[in-house]
Amino acid sequence: MQITPGPLLAQINTPEDLKKFSKDKLVQICEELRQYIVDNVSVYGGHFGASLGVVELTVALHYVLNTPEDQLVWDVGHQAYGHKILTGRKDSFHTNRVYGGISGFPKRKESEYDTFGVGHSSTSISAALGMAVASKYKGSNIQHVAVIGDGSMTGGMAFEAMNHAGVSDSNLLIILNDNCMAIDPNVGALKDYLTDITTSRTYNKVKDEVWRVLGKMSKFGSSAQEIISKVEGAVKSTLLNQSNLFESLNLRYFGPVDGHDVDHLVEILKDLKDIPGPKILHCITVKGKGYAPAENGNQTTWHAPGTFDKVTGEIFKTTPTAPQAPKYQDVFGNTLVELAEMDSRIMGVTPAMPSGSSMNIMMKAMPDRAFDVGIAEQHAVTFSAGLATQGLVPFCNIYSTFMQRAYDQVVHDVCLQNLPVVFCLDRAGFAGADGPTHHGAYDIAFFRCIPNLVVSAPMNEEELRNLMFTGSIYNGPFSIRYPRGAGVMPEWKTPLQEIPVGQGRIVKEGEDVAILSIGHIGNYAVEACKTLVKEGLNPAHYDMRFVKPLDEELLHEIFGKFKKVVTIEDGCLMGGFGSAVLEWMVDKGYTAQVKRLGIPDDVIEHGEQIQLHRECGFDPDGIALTVRSLSELARVS
Amino acid sequence: MQITPGPLLAQINTPEDLKKFSKDKLVQICEELRQYIVDNVSVYGGHFGASLGVVELTVALHYVLNTPEDQLVWDVGHQAYGHKILTGRKDSFHTNRVYGGISGFPKRKESEYDTFGVGHSSTSISAALGMAVASKYKGSNIQHVAVIGDGSMTGGMAFEAMNHAGVSDSNLLIILNDNCMAIDPNVGALKDYLTDITTSRTYNKVKDEVWRVLGKMSKFGSSAQEIISKVEGAVKSTLLNQSNLFESLNLRYFGPVDGHDVDHLVEILKDLKDIPGPKILHCITVKGKGYAPAENGNQTTWHAPGTFDKVTGEIFKTTPTAPQAPKYQDVFGNTLVELAEMDSRIMGVTPAMPSGSSMNIMMKAMPDRAFDVGIAEQHAVTFSAGLATQGLVPFCNIYSTFMQRAYDQVVHDVCLQNLPVVFCLDRAGFAGADGPTHHGAYDIAFFRCIPNLVVSAPMNEEELRNLMFTGSIYNGPFSIRYPRGAGVMPEWKTPLQEIPVGQGRIVKEGEDVAILSIGHIGNYAVEACKTLVKEGLNPAHYDMRFVKPLDEELLHEIFGKFKKVVTIEDGCLMGGFGSAVLEWMVDKGYTAQVKRLGIPDDVIEHGEQIQLHRECGFDPDGIALTVRSLSELARVS
Repeated sequence: MQITPGPLLAQINTPEDLKKFSKDKLVQICEELRQYIVDNVSVYGGHFGASLGVVELTVALHYVLNTPEDQLVWDVGHQAYGHKILTGRKDSFHTNRVYGGISGFPKRKESEYDTFGVGHSSTSISAALGMAVASKYKGSNIQHVAVIGDGSMTGGMAFEAMNHAGVSDSNLLIILNDNCMAIDPNVGALKDYLTDITTSRTYNKVKDEVWRVLGKMSKFGSSAQEIISKVEGAVKSTLLNQSNLFESLNLRYFGPVDGHDVDHLVEILKDLKDIPGPKILHCITVKGKGYAPAENGNQTTWHAPGTFDKVTGEIFKTTPTAPQAPKYQDVFGNTLVELAEMDSRIMGVTPAMPSGSSMNIMMKAMPDRAFDVGIAEQHAVTFSAGLATQGLVPFCNIYSTFMQRAYDQVVHDVCLQNLPVVFCLDRAGFAGADGPTHHGAYDIAFFRCIPNLVVSAPMNEEELRNLMFTGSIYNGPFSIRYPRGAGVMPEWKTPLQEIPVGQGRIVKEGEDVAILSIGHIGNYAVEACKTLVKEGLNPAHYDMRFVKPLDEELLHEIFGKFKKVVTIEDGCLMGGFGSAVLEWMVDKGYTAQVKRLGIPDDVIEHGEQIQLHRECGFDPDGIALTVRSLSELARVS
Repeated sequence: MQITPGPLLAQINTPEDLKKFSKDKLVQICEELRQYIVDNVSVYGGHFGASLGVVELTVALHYVLNTPEDQLVWDVGHQAYGHKILTGRKDSFHTNRVYGGISGFPKRKESEYDTFGVGHSSTSISAALGMAVASKYKGSNIQHVAVIGDGSMTGGMAFEAMNHAGVSDSNLLIILNDNCMAIDPNVGALKDYLTDITTSRTYNKVKDEVWRVLGKMSKFGSSAQEIISKVEGAVKSTLLNQSNLFESLNLRYFGPVDGHDVDHLVEILKDLKDIPGPKILHCITVKGKGYAPAENGNQTTWHAPGTFDKVTGEIFKTTPTAPQAPKYQDVFGNTLVELAEMDSRIMGVTPAMPSGSSMNIMMKAMPDRAFDVGIAEQHAVTFSAGLATQGLVPFCNIYSTFMQRAYDQVVHDVCLQNLPVVFCLDRAGFAGADGPTHHGAYDIAFFRCIPNLVVSAPMNEEELRNLMFTGSIYNGPFSIRYPRGAGVMPEWKTPLQEIPVGQGRIVKEGEDVAILSIGHIGNYAVEACKTLVKEGLNPAHYDMRFVKPLDEELLHEIFGKFKKVVTIEDGCLMGGFGSAVLEWMVDKGYTAQVKRLGIPDDVIEHGEQIQLHRECGFDPDGIALTVRSLSELARVS
């Protein structure tokens, strides 16, 4: 159901419509756009604080730029709701993040205004620079703007891109959207620096003060003037050429400016259009701006609060009647503290996901042993490797999809050296509403080819705890993947037990068909088996727990007994768990009919996890169907 | 054969020995160490210029630090020859980079002085910070030093690490070894900045000038003094807190200093030991220092010159009697220009490997269309994606092993968006003497699981050219992998022809056993077939050319005819080309005896490519052996 927009916003479907309004209407348009986001997200959920923080910037950019010809790239993109609403997607905005609906992130397929698909952080400067260099080559004089948060700015590739941009002589404007936040509060020296130049001792104030004082000094006559001139020269060259981190990289620096003053932003952006070369505008914004509970409350909570009462600011929570299984994330966070209390070697590392991964539990309990290193997956892994060289056992928790960012560090810095780092891959498998940029689809394939690395996945909370314990004493690289969301064990706090590395387990004895599952998705197999048993079939089910090393003893048993095998994984079919089983089978000379279920070699869009599993044929019904057809007892369902 | 060291160096086997000498002997020790490197590399080859550039730094560090207890991390590590010679490996140094000999890079397995294995760039700050944080946690007060070049400093993870280091309160010294070079001359805004603070308008001179002038002004009396005080406060806070890029990140900055003044270095390093917290020492060095042909000649050539006449500086070249096949690198470089001349959409991108990849041919011929973006693989890929959004067709050339650094960008920024970027993976397969950090072992496995991406490999120069042409008109993500070194076609400049995507070819008809090869390694299969034919066997040989999409028509033909199949790839067996064939075979219901040859799931050390192929059983003899045994006609060789 579409939410009713305010009277001015109702007239705006494209930036063309926006431009028809006089400048004095922009404040009201911002107000209505903000309200439209509040109205929508409170009912339908989604990202929240980030988009509220850039309402004025969004309106100003589309008012001044000639989009879509001018190129606007949003870093990460969860702040782009206002952009989507102003660029043709107001009427479909209630389908945001819903299966079949519009994406929660800018997406090229969705709109010509979405110049670059985003989701992961720190890509915008590289992409916009590519566009700007292309324009220069083609002799076009269009504008190129990258909007990037201070959190994303800590990602190394943003720095790589600035290093190139500074010598590129291309028409690129970087807008630094500085709200002191990633999803959690931003960390690191850069944040301190930005705060420093924004607060009382700001760059501008220092600069102004120096000029003012020097001006006064002219009254001391010509001798003084000569000195002033010298000081001015010295100070100027320092202040202007070297005093600023960004100017050090040859980017002209402007700001800081109030990112919520839409009139001022329009003026500045107009001016900046005429200034050639690479430049950066530093905007100070507030995440959640204009919605008091978000602005003044916990900004991390309001990053993506789910649905809420927009009047009271109360975030809706379903109160379960029966005990619920915990999220894997919370099992991880609590178990890590439990392990660390027993073993002083254990440390925690997260790249900017303390709340998302629940590493914040350890950060609170043991602040000297758990580290948020910023949006910096590469550094997170090699920093962990450094810890490991000193006899410590770091648990480095990185979402599966973001582990792609640290692949080389896992290979080169951890596994080639056989260092004891335990990688916890959160959000493995389909991420759900965040969609393809966030699906943890490839990790089994890209991890199992790395020498020395153990690749494991728990089917439930107990196994997660036991794998974490096992990893902590394994003394080599060890990875554990688990999905976003709840497990299956309300009574999750089971005693910690070592699992022999490479040992699977039988879940259900059976005949005719063997189901081999890896990870949480095995619970679907349990459901499928129940259905099939009712139908008179009796498949066996094995929870392999390890992709590498495989349980060879168990596999000999399975392939000795079964000629029909189904493998199931919440991961890509190309090179994944099923392929590992095939490799083993063929190497050992077995022949069996094997049907591999998993994520096909295609881009799977967003939706609820179960919807995506169904689409790919490995929800419980899909598994049952496959087993049935293998059993040659397929019935018309 | 061991080279004879100079008289002082002869007495030094460990840093303990070095410390026994008085400080006034250090200059001579540096001289002898430098000579020992020249003597060795001129005879045995290896990296050269970088180690000569840090002789004084190396001696000073081991003289001042208490290694191996104090932790010294060399970034990349090809500058660590002096370090190796001073730390127990002088006598084995003539085995450097030889099969079974010592590694060309620091390596934990090799020595306790090698605190962190390196090879790829920009890892040292992260690793040393991890060590420093571990020391802090353990209450130890040892020293932690990362030595990093200005080239490596452009890699994003170095910035990520500095962002963390700046707020870490850990005892970390970063030594910036600034020689204005990566392998090729360093590029980007950072380099300009470093040059800027090193030349006449240096940070220090500006600072000094301001203090001097302000001092003079005191003669104007108390009113002026008040003003001076204000100006001083303003200037000071700016200059000291914000004027320097590194101080912006809360690293105390010292320098620049002459990196070839060993006495001064010793004094500075002693002083810095007593200064707590994260800090950076900026050393200016000259690559190739002390060996005139390297110092004054082409520093890129002298990065790793091969063997040479140490007196004349003449680099030895074998003059072939017959026409030689060209390097794949040169075929790439020349063909790219040829394609770009025909197609104005084609651009070239390299992350700091213009000479290694031969991208320099296009950079010279078409400077506005080919870019060296610095050691910045992540940016290189997303910058290419940005170019591609504007209708251009970038050829992004990255060594297979370094592509691990840009994996997320390939997935997230190129392939999910289906953008037409042609990835050329140089040095795919075994890298040879550079060893495990540089082997391009995993790319087939980690690339073929990415949706939309074509994965191909040429068996010879003609196929490389044709695949490049095909990629340029494919209009989607396209990858081509090829090895380091020479192909097989002296007459390589064949007419450009499109290869239908996913089409393999038959190299040799046969019976009983089918050999399926991918890439250059197929030439080994040709050799093996010749041997086998002489023995009376008659295997068929197919050059598949594409790992993805597979040639399904050809595979149906093969598996319809053959029950014995050998797959061959210069890549990992886990999830590689052979696995792709297995997946297809089992999906289609074929059964055959398949033997996969390739790189096993282990860390393979350095050596000549053919030695490593032999070790892994896929040199021509190994292939012949496998075919023979499959043919059940194995003979005692």
